[in-house]
Amino acid sequence: MAKNRFTLPIEEGCENIVHDIIQKWGADAVRNSDGTTMTSFFEDLGLKVYATYFPTRNDQEWAKNNRDELQQIYLLSDRCTAVSDTLEIDPMHSYFDQQFEIHSQDDPHKYWQVINRTTGEEVSTDLWTYDPLTKKVLIKKTTPWNIYTVGFLAKQIWDVTQMYNHLINDWKDKHHEMPYDPAFPKTRAHILQDLEDWLKNHPKVNVVRFTSFFYHFTVVYDQHKQQKFGDWFGYSASISVPTLNNFNKEFGYTLKAEDIIDQGYYNTAYRLPSPAFQDYLKYQQKFVSQLAKECVDLVHKYNKEAMMFIGDNWIGTEPFGEYFPSIGLDAVVGSTSNGLGIRMISDMPGVRYREVRFLPYFFPDLFNDDNDPSSIAGDIWIKSRRALMINLLDRMGYGGYLGLAIKYPTFVDTVTLITDQFNQLHENLKDTTVSFIPVKIAILNAWGTLKAWQCNRTGHAGGGKESAPYTGVLEALSGMPFVVEFINFEDIKSDKLSQYQIVINAGSAYTAWTGDIHWTDPEIVSKIREWVYNGGGFIGVGAPTAYQYCGSFFQLSDILGVDKETENTINFSKRDSLSKTKHFITEDLRDPIIQTGFCERNIYSVSEKTQILSHDLINGIQLSTHEFGQGRSVYMAGMPYSLKNSDLIYRAILWAAHQEQSKEAIFSNNISVEGYAYQEKNLLAILNNSLEEQNAILKFQGKEYTVTLSSMELLWLKLI
Amino acid sequence: MAKNRFTLPIEEGCENIVHDIIQKWGADAVRNSDGTTMTSFFEDLGLKVYATYFPTRNDQEWAKNNRDELQQIYLLSDRCTAVSDTLEIDPMHSYFDQQFEIHSQDDPHKYWQVINRTTGEEVSTDLWTYDPLTKKVLIKKTTPWNIYTVGFLAKQIWDVTQMYNHLINDWKDKHHEMPYDPAFPKTRAHILQDLEDWLKNHPKVNVVRFTSFFYHFTVVYDQHKQQKFGDWFGYSASISVPTLNNFNKEFGYTLKAEDIIDQGYYNTAYRLPSPAFQDYLKYQQKFVSQLAKECVDLVHKYNKEAMMFIGDNWIGTEPFGEYFPSIGLDAVVGSTSNGLGIRMISDMPGVRYREVRFLPYFFPDLFNDDNDPSSIAGDIWIKSRRALMINLLDRMGYGGYLGLAIKYPTFVDTVTLITDQFNQLHENLKDTTVSFIPVKIAILNAWGTLKAWQCNRTGHAGGGKESAPYTGVLEALSGMPFVVEFINFEDIKSDKLSQYQIVINAGSAYTAWTGDIHWTDPEIVSKIREWVYNGGGFIGVGAPTAYQYCGSFFQLSDILGVDKETENTINFSKRDSLSKTKHFITEDLRDPIIQTGFCERNIYSVSEKTQILSHDLINGIQLSTHEFGQGRSVYMAGMPYSLKNSDLIYRAILWAAHQEQSKEAIFSNNISVEGYAYQEKNLLAILNNSLEEQNAILKFQGKEYTVTLSSMELLWLKLI
Repeated sequence: MAKNRFTLPIEEGCENIVHDIIQKWGADAVRNSDGTTMTSFFEDLGLKVYATYFPTRNDQEWAKNNRDELQQIYLLSDRCTAVSDTLEIDPMHSYFDQQFEIHSQDDPHKYWQVINRTTGEEVSTDLWTYDPLTKKVLIKKTTPWNIYTVGFLAKQIWDVTQMYNHLINDWKDKHHEMPYDPAFPKTRAHILQDLEDWLKNHPKVNVVRFTSFFYHFTVVYDQHKQQKFGDWFGYSASISVPTLNNFNKEFGYTLKAEDIIDQGYYNTAYRLPSPAFQDYLKYQQKFVSQLAKECVDLVHKYNKEAMMFIGDNWIGTEPFGEYFPSIGLDAVVGSTSNGLGIRMISDMPGVRYREVRFLPYFFPDLFNDDNDPSSIAGDIWIKSRRALMINLLDRMGYGGYLGLAIKYPTFVDTVTLITDQFNQLHENLKDTTVSFIPVKIAILNAWGTLKAWQCNRTGHAGGGKESAPYTGVLEALSGMPFVVEFINFEDIKSDKLSQYQIVINAGSAYTAWTGDIHWTDPEIVSKIREWVYNGGGFIGVGAPTAYQYCGSFFQLSDILGVDKETENTINFSKRDSLSKTKHFITEDLRDPIIQTGFCERNIYSVSEKTQILSHDLINGIQLSTHEFGQGRSVYMAGMPYSLKNSDLIYRAILWAAHQEQSKEAIFSNNISVEGYAYQEKNLLAILNNSLEEQNAILKFQGKEYTVTLSSMELLWLKLI
Repeated sequence: MAKNRFTLPIEEGCENIVHDIIQKWGADAVRNSDGTTMTSFFEDLGLKVYATYFPTRNDQEWAKNNRDELQQIYLLSDRCTAVSDTLEIDPMHSYFDQQFEIHSQDDPHKYWQVINRTTGEEVSTDLWTYDPLTKKVLIKKTTPWNIYTVGFLAKQIWDVTQMYNHLINDWKDKHHEMPYDPAFPKTRAHILQDLEDWLKNHPKVNVVRFTSFFYHFTVVYDQHKQQKFGDWFGYSASISVPTLNNFNKEFGYTLKAEDIIDQGYYNTAYRLPSPAFQDYLKYQQKFVSQLAKECVDLVHKYNKEAMMFIGDNWIGTEPFGEYFPSIGLDAVVGSTSNGLGIRMISDMPGVRYREVRFLPYFFPDLFNDDNDPSSIAGDIWIKSRRALMINLLDRMGYGGYLGLAIKYPTFVDTVTLITDQFNQLHENLKDTTVSFIPVKIAILNAWGTLKAWQCNRTGHAGGGKESAPYTGVLEALSGMPFVVEFINFEDIKSDKLSQYQIVINAGSAYTAWTGDIHWTDPEIVSKIREWVYNGGGFIGVGAPTAYQYCGSFFQLSDILGVDKETENTINFSKRDSLSKTKHFITEDLRDPIIQTGFCERNIYSVSEKTQILSHDLINGIQLSTHEFGQGRSVYMAGMPYSLKNSDLIYRAILWAAHQEQSKEAIFSNNISVEGYAYQEKNLLAILNNSLEEQNAILKFQGKEYTVTLSSMELLWLKLI
């Protein structure tokens, strides 16, 4: 079997063993990493050569000589309480002065905003001044005991990624790289020129790995050199005076500091996007895509491939947005450690091929005697593999120091096993797809397609305690034979619902992930009610449809059969207890306690027809079902990813979609073992989603398959 | 020592032992109970005779002959989803048809409201009809998939208290008593006449115990004869057509069904009271007080005392309201099981004396071999006694079947001990008060004085899991030598803050107990900030000052030093951990884990000066302090009552008020032992707040008192 879909990180000193590794892992490409150099030895191995290119910081001479054209950022000062009728604010007080410096060359009165956060009103510019000597803002005629903030522009004087590596690795006086901004025409032209020069000077490079394009996601350090704010999706570090001016030309109105700063919440994806912020997203996507296309065209001119790294300076590319395909990239590469990360890459449109760089990095933090890199890699593969069964991506690789990895022979063996399975998938699944269960699922939130596979996430992985109960649903779905799409509330209005059998609304109250004020829109709730009544399946996780309004908190409590106690109904009797009737969703459950994590709590039934499948005295209903007309609904208080919860979600979807008897569904009597049918190829793939041996009986189309699987095994059977 | 402050429930069959019990418990009054009869034997014991009188259901012949003048209630139908352009709603569907019947004699189009709960709009009366035959409402031209409700008037055809006893005791075909409404002039006159007749016919009765006056707090049963809604403070069962009409005359506008029904939340005390509901409270207080005064005058005319039971038909009396003293009652009596219940009675203004009827009732539910009535009574006494040390009330008693109680000799002994201690308190504390620590505390909520000692409560006791973290604070305070007052946001505006050293804001977000939208009022937050800055102490429990607005959730997060993560700041780094510096509040704490119950969660620091005294990885900050100017602030995620939490609250108040060194403060090295100084009498009272023997050292004014106390002991020492 050919193994030729692997990108190998190389390192000087590994010349002797590299052929063995290439053989074992099936490498057909090499790449360097931070701190390793692509020597001609490796360039001449006959493999494809990848090279990283940073469009906005490759030429630090340019940065030094054009400090006026460095990237900018909107920041909000501390919230300062006036104790008299004047107030002095040091905008930079809680920021890292090596990362930012105040940008006051462009009139602060034009680009900054001083806001009274007690009244919500902007302070007139004639009442405040910025002193470039003291670097402080003095506000006159303040209302004592009101809170004031200064929203200001700063220059980015240290590239975030380099700053992180610099501080972590204690690079001491190594030069701080500064990012320059293509919103300045001169710099824009230079970026293209620099790229062309670089392309000329790197004839052996086959793949230019843009890392990434122009604007980094927001990472802000505090005065103690620690991360204060980080948003993998954040746009606040992409703003600048020329961008503001160009925006005005295009949209006919002026963006204010507050449109980006958003009360200090910086429009994270959890926030319901404002109209102005949505316009800004459009503007920046268009700008980034146009320039990125010019970069890609240059790469093609030199007969190389253009690949984009998903992350770092990826702001504005929005791979699921309308402009991304126009960039014309050959490929994307992203790093991940789980199934939803895989699907975010493998579902990305508009490129020829997709690559995953699996974690863990070959870095000393995990490759040491306190850890077992082999098990870590195995766990990541197990989670990721589920998603590959549904939508296989084209290539894989790792990053870091090869010399470190080869010190761990069991790790080398595990990666050999992984690459072997990865190639089996390619061999067996060529030109076919999994046999989908005829259930099309819409994940409904305020973002829709634009943030596909990015819901409830704060970074690359599944997130912290707040997000885990909701990303767990996506993680489970990433490896299930359902078509999963992401829709927003406009899609509901334009009658897309009829395409789906299941709608899932998952997240916390008053976030973009559940929908916030959209749930007070009669058209939205009416259309969903009609669709459920006529047979649709509605699954709510956490605080679905939540908005305190007109006598309920969950606006679709009539469909869900449950609501959340917000102490408006504290005087109503609640007698919820576990349903005594067996239910399809939980009938095979041995242990009735569901791990709901940091889930929504105080959920109670509002209908006598609500069937409670899991309930605890403190938190209330954990899992319940309800019927509405011909439709079915499932409520889950939280579903952090686990094999058990994944099984529950699978069964909940089948039930809600009236597909308990689906002839495409596979049922396993062991939650650690999952099966995937590929009927066109007459194949059944069976996964051991654990590091232990497992026995299982799988049922598919009335047939039983009894199997014993070794750790991580991927077993192929002919369908009987 | 004289024992003559005890009201004894009598029962036929106890004639032989009653003298012994009178002696042991020091009874000077007798009363009957539900199901016991006051025979002449007991009437002639030479003790005061209490008799219960029910003004609105004493004459059931009147009720039967004047069914048009029964009490009414506003109810809301189920929330019904329209599936086409007409919708039929059965308003009574989920109500108990033996408790209510639809009242349609007065034009439904005038007094009912049909509301679209999807849009919030009222449905025009020409689009719906009520059919008295089918007892259903038909709505035409409904918007399909919108939710509709009918707010309607019903007659109360079964008195709630009698219904409860009837159903619990299975009284079968015993007549259902019906409450009649003094809002009807004819019934009003009859109530006074009936009372006068009754007074004439009960010459041996000394104390008329009104149980209570006219309107019962709201208790609504469902179609399964189970309680659906119960609100000890609820006014929705006090409404009627004549009341609506009279209200209109007095206030110049018409109350609508929705003003009482309140989206189905029925204006519980957790809800921020609307202007209309506040007007209604005023109207009903005035009406009830005026008629109650006439009743009391009649009682006095017959040389008897008038006593009001705190509960049942007490709606509109509002003992902390402005009209209550005008009733001219001699006394109040209330039942309780804890300290805050005691203070609610003992702090009540406008009466000559106050009586407590301690729980447990002598009823078979607790007086059986599965329970220990003695320990139950002991626990209740221990909690209540703390409050009596601060504000002693005048009399005590019990209720129920005496014949049952005397079967439990240890219970009889415990009550003997309790009455003995109660009398000691009266002997020792005559004409003096506890030595107050000079810290005056304001409990701030939207109700202020009107709901003194009633905050965060749903019924008589401390409430369920939602309220316990907040009522725990009141319970602790009930037995502490601080002046405690209750203020609302108007009091803040009228500059009452300067009277206080401490403000406490405790409860959940968006409730009247924390204040809801009041926190967006710049005047409110500014005045509190100024007051704290100049030395005030602000203690927040749960979601103090909560309202999502202008970039923070806790509007006084600048004072508290903490805020709640509402997923707007999920991308901000949080590195909270336990403070390494010792703090006065917790320095004596052996076990750092605080039981916060069903508390607020996900609290994080927003200031580097926040000192975290208790923290857990899942819920975040549990207890922290922060300084603001000269002032101090304490945040507590929840403080259900316990001896340990009580001690924490005591120390938190002293710290926040800068009174750690107070010469009035007593410190005990054992949380089960509390001391109270009465310096005018040169006495130190020391309580064992447990059923076990305790050793303790108490410090007061530099002196140490080393004591060993038996179970429940009350020890009196001379101050040294």
